[in-house]
Amino acid sequence: MSTDPTAVFDDEARALDAADPLAAHRDAFVGAESSLVYFDGNSLGRPPRATAERLAEFVTTEWGGRLIRGWDESWMELPFRIGDRLGRLALGAAAGQTVIGDSTTVLLYKLLRAALTERSTADPQRVEIVVGRDDFPTDRYLVEGIAAERGARIVWVEVDTARGVDADLLRAAVGPRTAVVLLSHVSYRSGFLADARTLTRIAHDAGALVLWDLCHSAGSVPVDLDGWAVDLAVGCTYKYLNGGPGAPAFAYVAARHHATLTQPIQGWMGAADVFAMGPEYRPAEGMRRFLSGTPPVLAMLAMQDTLDLIEDAGIAAIRNKSVALTDFALRVSDGILSPLGVTVASPRDPAERGGHVTLSHPAMRAVTVRLWKDDVIPDYRDPGGLRIGLAPLSTSFAETLTGLRAVAEAVRAES
Amino acid sequence: MSTDPTAVFDDEARALDAADPLAAHRDAFVGAESSLVYFDGNSLGRPPRATAERLAEFVTTEWGGRLIRGWDESWMELPFRIGDRLGRLALGAAAGQTVIGDSTTVLLYKLLRAALTERSTADPQRVEIVVGRDDFPTDRYLVEGIAAERGARIVWVEVDTARGVDADLLRAAVGPRTAVVLLSHVSYRSGFLADARTLTRIAHDAGALVLWDLCHSAGSVPVDLDGWAVDLAVGCTYKYLNGGPGAPAFAYVAARHHATLTQPIQGWMGAADVFAMGPEYRPAEGMRRFLSGTPPVLAMLAMQDTLDLIEDAGIAAIRNKSVALTDFALRVSDGILSPLGVTVASPRDPAERGGHVTLSHPAMRAVTVRLWKDDVIPDYRDPGGLRIGLAPLSTSFAETLTGLRAVAEAVRAES
Repeated sequence: MSTDPTAVFDDEARALDAADPLAAHRDAFVGAESSLVYFDGNSLGRPPRATAERLAEFVTTEWGGRLIRGWDESWMELPFRIGDRLGRLALGAAAGQTVIGDSTTVLLYKLLRAALTERSTADPQRVEIVVGRDDFPTDRYLVEGIAAERGARIVWVEVDTARGVDADLLRAAVGPRTAVVLLSHVSYRSGFLADARTLTRIAHDAGALVLWDLCHSAGSVPVDLDGWAVDLAVGCTYKYLNGGPGAPAFAYVAARHHATLTQPIQGWMGAADVFAMGPEYRPAEGMRRFLSGTPPVLAMLAMQDTLDLIEDAGIAAIRNKSVALTDFALRVSDGILSPLGVTVASPRDPAERGGHVTLSHPAMRAVTVRLWKDDVIPDYRDPGGLRIGLAPLSTSFAETLTGLRAVAEAVRAES
Repeated sequence: MSTDPTAVFDDEARALDAADPLAAHRDAFVGAESSLVYFDGNSLGRPPRATAERLAEFVTTEWGGRLIRGWDESWMELPFRIGDRLGRLALGAAAGQTVIGDSTTVLLYKLLRAALTERSTADPQRVEIVVGRDDFPTDRYLVEGIAAERGARIVWVEVDTARGVDADLLRAAVGPRTAVVLLSHVSYRSGFLADARTLTRIAHDAGALVLWDLCHSAGSVPVDLDGWAVDLAVGCTYKYLNGGPGAPAFAYVAARHHATLTQPIQGWMGAADVFAMGPEYRPAEGMRRFLSGTPPVLAMLAMQDTLDLIEDAGIAAIRNKSVALTDFALRVSDGILSPLGVTVASPRDPAERGGHVTLSHPAMRAVTVRLWKDDVIPDYRDPGGLRIGLAPLSTSFAETLTGLRAVAEAVRAES
């Protein structure tokens, strides 16, 4: 008998797809019908089919028809309206605390500066920013720049690259000199899912504010910002929220901080009375004070189609499918990739794992180049990490299996 | 005989439209066929008809089809490619000095911070920022915030609200303590067009850097950044460049400053090797160092349709039509609005006037509300200023006359 010992995975993928309550949602995305395998929804989510029509309709009817009147009629409120909806559906944030705007980098800059100023003003010895050594470059680079310009000190948390900042590491890093802790909810490299409630409490026990980077969790992992008593959060909308290439980011500031936090990029849209255009800047009440320039209306339209899908599916069901997808991917990897020397650089425990898994092998850079040519699209991160992003709304189990078999072939070819 | 003494304007409008070499370009815009009068292309430009299809096609083919591969294939370079094209067609900027990104406010913040740091490091007594008292709020608010955080001093240039900063005013404001001068090329309120070449030289003679705000000139008034020896410029793309509501801004940094200027929002996209994701931030060479977060690709697509139109028409012809439109508007205003007590709050000399004219009357706020209901759309700026924006590519002389007659009716009704 020469049966394929991995044929069992075909049966399993079929069964999992057949039983998947979100299977039909996949058809809502452009390209669902193609044979392309997409393992990078954690970096740039696929567009929902509804988005092309939404944008074209906006251009002709709203922009072209309402013209400047659109600002008064709805656009001025759009960053708050979409922010509130995102907060309710995916972030556990009550209304009035979430806004869409700028980029992740710019919003992190504003909120880090705001938090550092508030804490170091309240207590001049609080001049330390705690951040993970393995965090996403923007987070680290921003902290470097802010520390240099404000005379703050960086406390780097050294982490295992297959994990992230955990409770023990954070406890050892914070203290009476800590102003703000910047943490990643899901590690961009390993997919490690932090225990946000516990880490937030550790930061608070030390008298610090905490700023969560939700880029790799928002839309795939349930977030409970109000419940966890988080102070500040920033995240990305072009990954699991499918906002399109370079879509604006979101920021959350807990209501209790609105009166005391101010950010340094003082623009007209953050002023108390935008159209008074008065002689001096006075920050607006509430979340508006965290805006600077004109809200990127056209750029924040697309994400609404995914919010529709999240509202329909529910974030709990999305997380259930996400765990099932990453579980399946790890089993397939153990079955067909481990024998080729591929190791898993992501947590085995689903409670510690976000929506992507990272598979390591020295040949993964070359493997990625080969796979892209064959319409199998993961991405690559040094050192030797192939990231398998499994966006729960747009990825099937069969697609996952097809893709991992292609990875096996490519590893064989490049080894 | 009871002939309308203003009927002569109808003949004139007809003749001007018939002789207008850019008349056909108006048909390229959504709404050209409607009876709506649009006097606010200086605030939010109309969409070209091509834009709806461009966006829908991008979603399906590029975003949906190329997915993450799009970044390597073209999107990473798009901010520079569009920036260079804008520079060549409308800004007098050689390649490699213009980039699209962020918002006007955020780019002004970055470049003001960069310029202040460079000048005050070279000469510690240079701690003054010179800015017009009547500049757009974002410019003034930003300077306030930066001065407070950096310990700089603001020198306010007091201007006549019907004009702007001119050579005499600037000469009196700059000196050996000046670090940077922030100037508006066209005043948002009066439409005053500054003599950018002369003012740049005055700033340089004082040893300062100059940062031009081109929001109200880019795309309607020829700009010659390289020829004028400008250091820095920032401008808006949703006005005369029709980039859509909240479209990203552009920044120009003269090549001679690339090695010495650094900006404070240190993100991954400004790093020397974006995907190395190394341990420390090293700014990229050239314009990339002025980026921070992921480029807003979807949001910078629309402006390309207007760049196509500018390439076809030529910026000189656009300026010629702009001058003819504002001249005509002033003649009509003198004929039918002056008798109602309306005054002109914009320069009479076309060499000192940008693309909009401002008409003053105490009732203009109420007039604006009334006009909007009748699909005649100017905008209003305190105190008592009705801004008549005449986007040269999308506005006809007949439309201008129809709109100003509606203004006359509304002033009569509200007086």
